[in-house]
Amino acid sequence: MSMVCLREYEDYARKHLPKAVWDFWAAGADDCHTREENILAFKRIRLRPRMLCDVSVIDTRTTVLGTEISFPLGIAPSAFHCLAWHDGELSTARASGAMNVCYITSTNSTYSVEEIADAAPNGLHWLQLYVFRERKLSEQLVRRAEAAGYKALVLTVDAPLVGKRRADIRNNFQLPPHLKVKNFDGLFEESNGSKEYGMPANTFDLSVTWKDIHWLQSLTHLPIIIKGILTKEDAELALKHGVHGIIVSNHGGRQLDGVSATIDALSEVVDAVQGKIEVYLDSGIRTGSDILKALALGAKCVFIGRPALWGLTYKGEEGLREVLKMLRDEFHLSMALAGCRNISEINKSLIHLSKL
Amino acid sequence: MSMVCLREYEDYARKHLPKAVWDFWAAGADDCHTREENILAFKRIRLRPRMLCDVSVIDTRTTVLGTEISFPLGIAPSAFHCLAWHDGELSTARASGAMNVCYITSTNSTYSVEEIADAAPNGLHWLQLYVFRERKLSEQLVRRAEAAGYKALVLTVDAPLVGKRRADIRNNFQLPPHLKVKNFDGLFEESNGSKEYGMPANTFDLSVTWKDIHWLQSLTHLPIIIKGILTKEDAELALKHGVHGIIVSNHGGRQLDGVSATIDALSEVVDAVQGKIEVYLDSGIRTGSDILKALALGAKCVFIGRPALWGLTYKGEEGLREVLKMLRDEFHLSMALAGCRNISEINKSLIHLSKL
Amino acid sequence: MSMVCLREYEDYARKHLPKAVWDFWAAGADDCHTREENILAFKRIRLRPRMLCDVSVIDTRTTVLGTEISFPLGIAPSAFHCLAWHDGELSTARASGAMNVCYITSTNSTYSVEEIADAAPNGLHWLQLYVFRERKLSEQLVRRAEAAGYKALVLTVDAPLVGKRRADIRNNFQLPPHLKVKNFDGLFEESNGSKEYGMPANTFDLSVTWKDIHWLQSLTHLPIIIKGILTKEDAELALKHGVHGIIVSNHGGRQLDGVSATIDALSEVVDAVQGKIEVYLDSGIRTGSDILKALALGAKCVFIGRPALWGLTYKGEEGLREVLKMLRDEFHLSMALAGCRNISEINKSLIHLSKL
Amino acid sequence: MSMVCLREYEDYARKHLPKAVWDFWAAGADDCHTREENILAFKRIRLRPRMLCDVSVIDTRTTVLGTEISFPLGIAPSAFHCLAWHDGELSTARASGAMNVCYITSTNSTYSVEEIADAAPNGLHWLQLYVFRERKLSEQLVRRAEAAGYKALVLTVDAPLVGKRRADIRNNFQLPPHLKVKNFDGLFEESNGSKEYGMPANTFDLSVTWKDIHWLQSLTHLPIIIKGILTKEDAELALKHGVHGIIVSNHGGRQLDGVSATIDALSEVVDAVQGKIEVYLDSGIRTGSDILKALALGAKCVFIGRPALWGLTYKGEEGLREVLKMLRDEFHLSMALAGCRNISEINKSLIHLSKL
Repeated sequence: MSMVCLREYEDYARKHLPKAVWDFWAAGADDCHTREENILAFKRIRLRPRMLCDVSVIDTRTTVLGTEISFPLGIAPSAFHCLAWHDGELSTARASGAMNVCYITSTNSTYSVEEIADAAPNGLHWLQLYVFRERKLSEQLVRRAEAAGYKALVLTVDAPLVGKRRADIRNNFQLPPHLKVKNFDGLFEESNGSKEYGMPANTFDLSVTWKDIHWLQSLTHLPIIIKGILTKEDAELALKHGVHGIIVSNHGGRQLDGVSATIDALSEVVDAVQGKIEVYLDSGIRTGSDILKALALGAKCVFIGRPALWGLTYKGEEGLREVLKMLRDEFHLSMALAGCRNISEINKSLIHLSKL
Repeated sequence: MSMVCLREYEDYARKHLPKAVWDFWAAGADDCHTREENILAFKRIRLRPRMLCDVSVIDTRTTVLGTEISFPLGIAPSAFHCLAWHDGELSTARASGAMNVCYITSTNSTYSVEEIADAAPNGLHWLQLYVFRERKLSEQLVRRAEAAGYKALVLTVDAPLVGKRRADIRNNFQLPPHLKVKNFDGLFEESNGSKEYGMPANTFDLSVTWKDIHWLQSLTHLPIIIKGILTKEDAELALKHGVHGIIVSNHGGRQLDGVSATIDALSEVVDAVQGKIEVYLDSGIRTGSDILKALALGAKCVFIGRPALWGLTYKGEEGLREVLKMLRDEFHLSMALAGCRNISEINKSLIHLSKL
Repeated sequence: MSMVCLREYEDYARKHLPKAVWDFWAAGADDCHTREENILAFKRIRLRPRMLCDVSVIDTRTTVLGTEISFPLGIAPSAFHCLAWHDGELSTARASGAMNVCYITSTNSTYSVEEIADAAPNGLHWLQLYVFRERKLSEQLVRRAEAAGYKALVLTVDAPLVGKRRADIRNNFQLPPHLKVKNFDGLFEESNGSKEYGMPANTFDLSVTWKDIHWLQSLTHLPIIIKGILTKEDAELALKHGVHGIIVSNHGGRQLDGVSATIDALSEVVDAVQGKIEVYLDSGIRTGSDILKALALGAKCVFIGRPALWGLTYKGEEGLREVLKMLRDEFHLSMALAGCRNISEINKSLIHLSKL
Repeated sequence: MSMVCLREYEDYARKHLPKAVWDFWAAGADDCHTREENILAFKRIRLRPRMLCDVSVIDTRTTVLGTEISFPLGIAPSAFHCLAWHDGELSTARASGAMNVCYITSTNSTYSVEEIADAAPNGLHWLQLYVFRERKLSEQLVRRAEAAGYKALVLTVDAPLVGKRRADIRNNFQLPPHLKVKNFDGLFEESNGSKEYGMPANTFDLSVTWKDIHWLQSLTHLPIIIKGILTKEDAELALKHGVHGIIVSNHGGRQLDGVSATIDALSEVVDAVQGKIEVYLDSGIRTGSDILKALALGAKCVFIGRPALWGLTYKGEEGLREVLKMLRDEFHLSMALAGCRNISEINKSLIHLSKL
């Protein structure tokens, strides 16, 4: 069967994944209001397309932090790709590399940063980070990422604690014994305490503040991106603390239920940074026209989480390539039908702002 | 069985057409949000009817580009009427002529412009056009339309590429072998490449811009109408380039999903042209009160696409005449109940503008 | 079984009436949007109740045109009560009289104005009128109403033609042969033409204008009320033409589909008349709190149509008395819980106006 | 089975309680619009979470009228806990005491004020009051509450009459013979009249006004809280009459249907009192993030009604402790994910006010 839209990959994954794995990725926090809003908010936005613009040549290329990508979409970090496909993150890296998009690998990967980088040596890789209570762990991971050629660090700031995802609690979701968080292989073996998703409880440092951004900057020459900002106040702080980018994210609706859809929070953040750093967005992208809307409202690039996992579940590298290609083709078509020949022609005039 | 409302013709068509044909006409792009909005937006508009106006004589007649029609509704261009009824566009032409409404024939008709004109010699015919990569094709078609007595050219500007209609992709929809796009009979026979709806891929010119309006004007004395405008910016450009009319259209929700309902975009276009050219609307007309709403918001005439095909599917010429008569009768009744005795009495005061 | 709310009478009527009769009364025009809005708009209004007001004595009495009624609700005109109960309007008159509310009898009653008046000699009766093409018919009816003790004339102005009620067309709804519009008994016997609800087509005068109000005033000393006004413009004209009251009505959503809910149109009319004449409302009253909302927004009294017929269907006079008593009790309770001891304490401060 | 969210306790209670008891607690007035709005209004509010705030230590403690509680939630008064669990209010008192939250006991309890106080001698107890027609009854109850160590009196002002709860009428709901309103044991035995929920009709004084607040103040040194205020006008009167607190409440949607959700009315009351007295809220709390929203909009503490009864139904004291613990844990997590380390950091900037 040939897939026609992202929802068909979702249906496939729902049908073929073990229930607890499906639930783990599908989960939103609490009542899942924010998870649903992420989708609905995109659909409420009305486009203002322009006609007769000579769309014989459409250029979907753009850059993130100066590196060219084939279109303004990348892979958001998500844990444990081996639950979707036997060689997990290796397939993700190969598909991303082949499609020339940015892949943000998760700290909680089932392959190590080195293995992932090696799988697609020419790919654009960023590494998602948490701050560990034991700072040395973070430090080592940063050094390894640098050595392996990662181009940026993405600090997740919206998850000092894990959101309450009811299905995971009901399922008592655990990483199966044959899988490991490979970046810390052996490190936590001795621990006898309860583990949360493969790592001991109390691993993360809840005391992190903006000052720790300076600590992180002191460790590395890599640009630092903050993931999980939803307000202008935090956007201004990010700017003040010298970060290189912001991902407007609500963690796919998995953390604090009741926060805005990311596309609804985007303008506030974009206005606050005044073009001084790049602003990205994840959560809720399901069609090419969603990408167009996010860019029109000021995002430099968007990232997909669950849809990447659906593609991976379907056919590994090939499945994810299909998903990426479908989104690129839909985005290309949306640009043409909106009268945009290249990324620089996408701006706010495409949006009915009074209906936001 | 006697039909009472347009939805019953729709139900008949859904039940009697081959699935792929039904899907082809019913399809919207992507998630079909705009297709649905076209209907819902009409239903959100609240009317302000006036009483005690002497409605003993109601005159529904109006004009389009100076020609009188029996009421302000016409047939929007749609492809391949022979899929609905054995003599397709000939029945459409006869029904339109009999009801004295304007019929915009599609370039992609299963009868030629001459055959259609001959079927209703006294009918008001406009011809819908694309700009072909091979300009000669467009040129020849324009000359033939002039010779056959067509009164205006309607240039479709919102379809440089075909919108992503999922059902058509799933169905691999193709014009059946016994049918042809008759306007180009024999012309594309030699082509071995893949065909899109009966014509070779790459037939259309994606590089068309507003300058090509001047090229088209140089070919013909016929008035030129632009179909597919949704913004004031493009309405102003249309005015500047000397077109004679605008059809506010989103192609029935079949092109860029996420654009506004046409009735929501109408006011912006009407305000931009300041009465200097006529503004029409298609997409979403299902009852006589929808026509009243569109005229109150500034449309000179509206056009129906799918409902015409439902009528044609039901009983050919007779079925379409029924549909047109039903809409005329409903519009007549709506005028009477709103206190409007003739078209000139229909204006913005009929609408609760604060609820738009 | 004892009934607890109006919906239970509705359910009873739906179950026990012949389908065509149920459909006739339940029908809205076209897609029934306005019929549904009449209900929904009430439910969107938010009340602001006041506490600690000494509600030991609640007085629900008010007046209409100077006559005291037990609470601000009456019976709106509706046709053919004998379809609901064997002695139809006689039961309606007796129940209304017993409950001391105003009964607006329909011209299209299955008992004559005299019979209805005789059934409840002490009741408050108003007569609903159309203007007939043959003015003598209207004139005679006015004289008979005066003689029979009717206290006001209610001119329906929103029905020069009958709205398009699909179910009635499908059912080919007709008054059964054993029933007659008794006010014109024998008058139309000779007519062989098609009849609409018991009277020949072309009976009504579609040319009626505000000038005819003066003609009606010249015939009678009775106060004249206009039923079917929805705009400030018409409210001002009503004032200018010396009418004594306005019923804000959309005919239960049975005429022009797409007009506002009456409760949404009420404020505009109330503001326009500036207290110079009484403003009433019908359409959408289903609970006592709906009455409270309508009075808070400026209505002097409300009228029920379908709910009266449900009560009549259930148990004739007794059933309608139950319905009236239930609404009076609910209104009494709503007043107490909102902190209103009498009608004069009900005002706009009870309503969250910013949420309208 | 382990419960994951409050809804699961609700499902358990729906399944295990006798229908009439379930209906009694679940009931809203009339169409239950306000009961539903209480929930929906919380879900419409969008949070603005802050990041990187050092949430290693979260302090959920606060005070009500100067007394420390473990988190800003308490038990709202509700009748007849023995219908949920064999030792009813005793379990409620023990669970509340163990969790260090405030328990507002209902006058209509199935244990006496003394028995309840004795069950949790260190617990924080407030007593909910009605004003009885026979003032001596209220007076005696006040004295007993003082003697038993109750710390405040909560006067219910929104229930001079009982709202129309359809299910209770259908079920003819009565307190079963083996249960009694223990605070008046023996007092009403001689009465032969119909009883409403265990007490004779006409027990309550409907004539209560603000002046009676002074009477109540003259009886006691205890602080007086008014429960059931929804408007700024009444909030100002409360302030003027020297009350110590206001509970913004609509009685769980059980009194006047159509009033605002409490969370929508909160700001109006908070603004009116200008911080001079404490403002609480009940109705609609179902998750920890609801508590966060209420506090952000100015509530000092919230109270739960039905959820407490669900917990009690599930496992008595243990079940209610689970419910309280779940809400405390969810609130703790919500604070952490919103970036609030203690109660004083929760303020309006957490809320998208433009979306209210």
